[in-house]
Amino acid sequence: MNFASDNSWGAHPAVLAALAQVNDGAVMAYGADPVTARAEAMLREVLEAPRAVVRFVATGTAANALVCAQLAPSFGRIYCHEDAHIETSECGAPEFHAHGAKLVTVAGEGGKIAPDALARAVAAGARAGLNGGRNALVSITNATEWGRVYHPREVAALAQVAHDAGLPLHMDGARFANAVAFAGCSAAEMTWRAGVDALCFGGTKNGAVAAEAVIFFDPALAEDFDYRRKQAGQVWSKSRFLAAQMLALLTGGLWLDLAKQANAKAARLAEAVLEGGGTLLAPTESNAVFAAIPALTHERAQAAGILYHLWGDTPLTEGAPVPVRLVCSWDMPDRDVAVLEMLLRGGCA
Amino acid sequence: MNFASDNSWGAHPAVLAALAQVNDGAVMAYGADPVTARAEAMLREVLEAPRAVVRFVATGTAANALVCAQLAPSFGRIYCHEDAHIETSECGAPEFHAHGAKLVTVAGEGGKIAPDALARAVAAGARAGLNGGRNALVSITNATEWGRVYHPREVAALAQVAHDAGLPLHMDGARFANAVAFAGCSAAEMTWRAGVDALCFGGTKNGAVAAEAVIFFDPALAEDFDYRRKQAGQVWSKSRFLAAQMLALLTGGLWLDLAKQANAKAARLAEAVLEGGGTLLAPTESNAVFAAIPALTHERAQAAGILYHLWGDTPLTEGAPVPVRLVCSWDMPDRDVAVLEMLLRGGCA
Amino acid sequence: MNFASDNSWGAHPAVLAALAQVNDGAVMAYGADPVTARAEAMLREVLEAPRAVVRFVATGTAANALVCAQLAPSFGRIYCHEDAHIETSECGAPEFHAHGAKLVTVAGEGGKIAPDALARAVAAGARAGLNGGRNALVSITNATEWGRVYHPREVAALAQVAHDAGLPLHMDGARFANAVAFAGCSAAEMTWRAGVDALCFGGTKNGAVAAEAVIFFDPALAEDFDYRRKQAGQVWSKSRFLAAQMLALLTGGLWLDLAKQANAKAARLAEAVLEGGGTLLAPTESNAVFAAIPALTHERAQAAGILYHLWGDTPLTEGAPVPVRLVCSWDMPDRDVAVLEMLLRGGCA
Amino acid sequence: MNFASDNSWGAHPAVLAALAQVNDGAVMAYGADPVTARAEAMLREVLEAPRAVVRFVATGTAANALVCAQLAPSFGRIYCHEDAHIETSECGAPEFHAHGAKLVTVAGEGGKIAPDALARAVAAGARAGLNGGRNALVSITNATEWGRVYHPREVAALAQVAHDAGLPLHMDGARFANAVAFAGCSAAEMTWRAGVDALCFGGTKNGAVAAEAVIFFDPALAEDFDYRRKQAGQVWSKSRFLAAQMLALLTGGLWLDLAKQANAKAARLAEAVLEGGGTLLAPTESNAVFAAIPALTHERAQAAGILYHLWGDTPLTEGAPVPVRLVCSWDMPDRDVAVLEMLLRGGCA
Repeated sequence: MNFASDNSWGAHPAVLAALAQVNDGAVMAYGADPVTARAEAMLREVLEAPRAVVRFVATGTAANALVCAQLAPSFGRIYCHEDAHIETSECGAPEFHAHGAKLVTVAGEGGKIAPDALARAVAAGARAGLNGGRNALVSITNATEWGRVYHPREVAALAQVAHDAGLPLHMDGARFANAVAFAGCSAAEMTWRAGVDALCFGGTKNGAVAAEAVIFFDPALAEDFDYRRKQAGQVWSKSRFLAAQMLALLTGGLWLDLAKQANAKAARLAEAVLEGGGTLLAPTESNAVFAAIPALTHERAQAAGILYHLWGDTPLTEGAPVPVRLVCSWDMPDRDVAVLEMLLRGGCA
Repeated sequence: MNFASDNSWGAHPAVLAALAQVNDGAVMAYGADPVTARAEAMLREVLEAPRAVVRFVATGTAANALVCAQLAPSFGRIYCHEDAHIETSECGAPEFHAHGAKLVTVAGEGGKIAPDALARAVAAGARAGLNGGRNALVSITNATEWGRVYHPREVAALAQVAHDAGLPLHMDGARFANAVAFAGCSAAEMTWRAGVDALCFGGTKNGAVAAEAVIFFDPALAEDFDYRRKQAGQVWSKSRFLAAQMLALLTGGLWLDLAKQANAKAARLAEAVLEGGGTLLAPTESNAVFAAIPALTHERAQAAGILYHLWGDTPLTEGAPVPVRLVCSWDMPDRDVAVLEMLLRGGCA
Repeated sequence: MNFASDNSWGAHPAVLAALAQVNDGAVMAYGADPVTARAEAMLREVLEAPRAVVRFVATGTAANALVCAQLAPSFGRIYCHEDAHIETSECGAPEFHAHGAKLVTVAGEGGKIAPDALARAVAAGARAGLNGGRNALVSITNATEWGRVYHPREVAALAQVAHDAGLPLHMDGARFANAVAFAGCSAAEMTWRAGVDALCFGGTKNGAVAAEAVIFFDPALAEDFDYRRKQAGQVWSKSRFLAAQMLALLTGGLWLDLAKQANAKAARLAEAVLEGGGTLLAPTESNAVFAAIPALTHERAQAAGILYHLWGDTPLTEGAPVPVRLVCSWDMPDRDVAVLEMLLRGGCA
Repeated sequence: MNFASDNSWGAHPAVLAALAQVNDGAVMAYGADPVTARAEAMLREVLEAPRAVVRFVATGTAANALVCAQLAPSFGRIYCHEDAHIETSECGAPEFHAHGAKLVTVAGEGGKIAPDALARAVAAGARAGLNGGRNALVSITNATEWGRVYHPREVAALAQVAHDAGLPLHMDGARFANAVAFAGCSAAEMTWRAGVDALCFGGTKNGAVAAEAVIFFDPALAEDFDYRRKQAGQVWSKSRFLAAQMLALLTGGLWLDLAKQANAKAARLAEAVLEGGGTLLAPTESNAVFAAIPALTHERAQAAGILYHLWGDTPLTEGAPVPVRLVCSWDMPDRDVAVLEMLLRGGCA
């Protein structure tokens, strides 16, 4: 039973089927094929953004790093949350691709940046002048690394701060589907209508083999991006296989259905945590639960071979509640969820 | 009918089946799964290199560029053929990943570097001192961009020159299988036994969806490579799907079988070229034919909707033979090959 | 009257005289001249480090950034104080030269890092694994950006933490002379004897036109550094003019004399601050005073046209003490110091 | 007697005097001082380019590399002569600063690029599409690395080709003064009036200690350049000392006078070469002579301790004429020139 990451789970059968469906015959390589064109078009439709430039890559780190490189110069300052994936988990990919750009972190509860905190940070950066580098980009993650969701009005408030300072707004949407599913809004409302300029639309955690989309809502921001993606080694020669994954997820709203399933499982676990005497470290709004659970519960879960990550970087105290991250996947058997639920409620496996 | 590139064709059914086979259940992400371990081990076996470090990436450009970055500093000189893929077709990926390293090109027939030409170039680089940067790496492609194949003894001669100058030898093996199939040697004989230090073992052109392997035969050369690959955005979270493709190709020698099929098709086309009054621009040793074909033949092929690339960068002369590149794939229907054969022989489609 | 920066002041007459003295005749360019050799040797003597590799550059930012690039890979983590010059004032030069390396900041009073805080940060970095990048370098500034001085035993404690984690220790010595002058130790005691691996020895703030030295105490750490410096555009063709400045400063201990003069002026100002009802934000240990001075004093100083920077990034409160940074130079007329002293004591200019 | 390089010689007394003249008192650091403003203004006047952005750096490599980085992206193609300093002598600085941009070389006699050769190369680059990177910049050197001079009409022809392809034109003017002196035109005619977009105006080889200017004739091309220069570690804190050198050279036309003196010495040597049975490898148009001299003459010069570089990279043949480069400096005693003249004419020293 694996609650370590949504990356631990497999691909949706529809995604694998799509690979087989596009496999016949020969097409032009490197993206000049009809499947790629169709997938780009379909994502533009889902986003209600007919002018958007859409490109596919295989990893979320690549997607985020390429957006950073596209929108920030080597001497740029990129504002993000101190727990942002680009800051903590990408081995310096944004700085590498952007030739040395600096991530400037902002604190905030639940992985969310507050507009006034952002405004203060951006203003300090502007005051730093040549010494500090040039303000270049604001990046937020939705859903956040703490499983919280920015609602469109919150995104709009951050976009306002960014745009007032002349900065574009990037949304790392590795779990974009989970955020949209929770917020109950449209993909457009969550992004360009709220002021997002560039979106990384995650497929991998949500049922793809390896597929992420980079979207620039204003084509002017995408100038020369094809060269950049190529130079980064992120252009598949058999591009149709990247595109077909996205097509499968977008068809019939599968991407949202899978996210809802994962979210629902997390909601069940969150309830169980509270019933079992644990506390939530953050409201459960997407497919992960951040909780402090009784030491005994933790021990029983370990004994039952349930995998998950401890949360945070502080050593455990004997007998004290244990901070954990429990991530759910659409692919996870109900039975697994039920077992962990029971344990969290204080029962035995 | 598409003879434009082996990248134009699909994935082998065994590869797609392998994706489905590894799809069940949860494993640890980012390569810490048993499928990845198995594929790495199997490639070490195929290469008879038990100490080698093997890592997978999705594109050949990424594979080559990461090796360059691993083995050359920003001020390094990387020696390659003037028609090498890393020089002509990767949008500066090696220079980008290696932070500005310089590709120094060497001429040579059929995309092959001659040992004395290499020796002269390397010596000139050494004489250039600080001005010219530091000699860092020699890179050859096998099979070459002209479809020629280095035999193990030729590789050894180049390795000798490189090693005498203290430089490691990289082999871009985007079509490694085709080269080994033609040479009739083992993978070990073609690589580390001949002095190759790093190999990019291509899967994509040979039946994978998107899978290439980077191999360092001496683990010392791979130090910190995992950080580099991660920072480049080339680590798949669901690594098993990358590894499974390789497993499928390696199992039962499928990789060599497919290469032999593609080579055989090219051999048929080469014979047809000669019979039809064309000339070969290079001996046909792998899965591509480089030929000057009669203008009429070219016209008929165009009229028949057969896709291929003109070869070289000189404008066509009315009525003169047309230089073309005809690439064969294992996946290509025999019927397609037969049609083009007939045309090349001077017949009509 | 300028207390804004020691960079605001001129070059020492002995430095200018040295330029004229080395000006006659022709020598080999790019550092292969006897003046450069002499200056490198003299700095090795001053540091009692006969095996050290010494190279000169024109700016402190270049010196620091080149050391970072030399000792950290693109995926490296470089630990420094949150107020370190490399973090706040070099426009991302270390990240740029090191191709995207990440500065990881540590808090601490007076710009000083405490060994246990460093140990915690380094351990957290190690735990971050591939996600966080590889621990690569520890960098401290002496004297610090708050004018504090690490004593050799404090440097040794930090070196211990760094070396235990396998990391080299860099000292940004833009005001190294001021630190040594205050500590009353030798340059060797302050550096390699305490475990420093690389030193940037500042000349510019201490009387040079533009001259800094980069020193690697272990020649193995300097491998290929000459290429790196060249590629960064930091090698002067007329190297003798860079070296002559250093020779002038090192001859007869001028570098220490000038630093003592500057330190003494700061000490006078610090006393005046306290007498005038101000408070020191940090003990005055080198050539700068960090103080909160009465609002009236600040107004009078402004009215008298005395230039200095406000300290920190918080807006001023009407009537509240004003945080300021007052930097002294050996070149500053005693009269200027006397005027500011009087004002700080509460008098009128 | 040193004919190895103009870099081997010293600084003009007026330059050293200027350093002393600006040394008094305190000014704001990092270029916000009146000397810097004056020097920038004076260079704009000399160039008759009131809107130009002028910035100073200490080395020619830095100047060239920063222009490349400013005008070419990481995936850019920069066209230059195969003997261009940026290609052969800067240790990859342009590629490093431009994050991997590719130098594409063009052949041509005397270090000069012919318009049709440039047009062909640029067209080939355009055809290469994503594979080859994006055409970004054309760079020429004037005077060239072979001592030849582009006349304004020749510059204009190249500018036409560049601009027709949408590319800016950079002139590496490490020996710009020598070129203008030979051409007998104005600095404006040689640059922006002929279509040059960015100029590196050399001071160091022409009497400065270390001072080069970067000029962007269209301020739009200089956007954010101050950040770039800062991040590269090329901003002097005591900027007045960089600017004062330029002021001294520009005052009273000293820069042109010195260049004329150096050119005249070279003309004398060229005549002596011909009289002594040698041949010129290129017409002598600036301050360097490229000649094949009789073996005996070479032997005598060596015996007399005259320093110069052999030219080219081919081994000498016993008894055959020896290809040499003889560089003259304004600073070189007439006596030295006379000695070499005599030898070249076939006499003994």
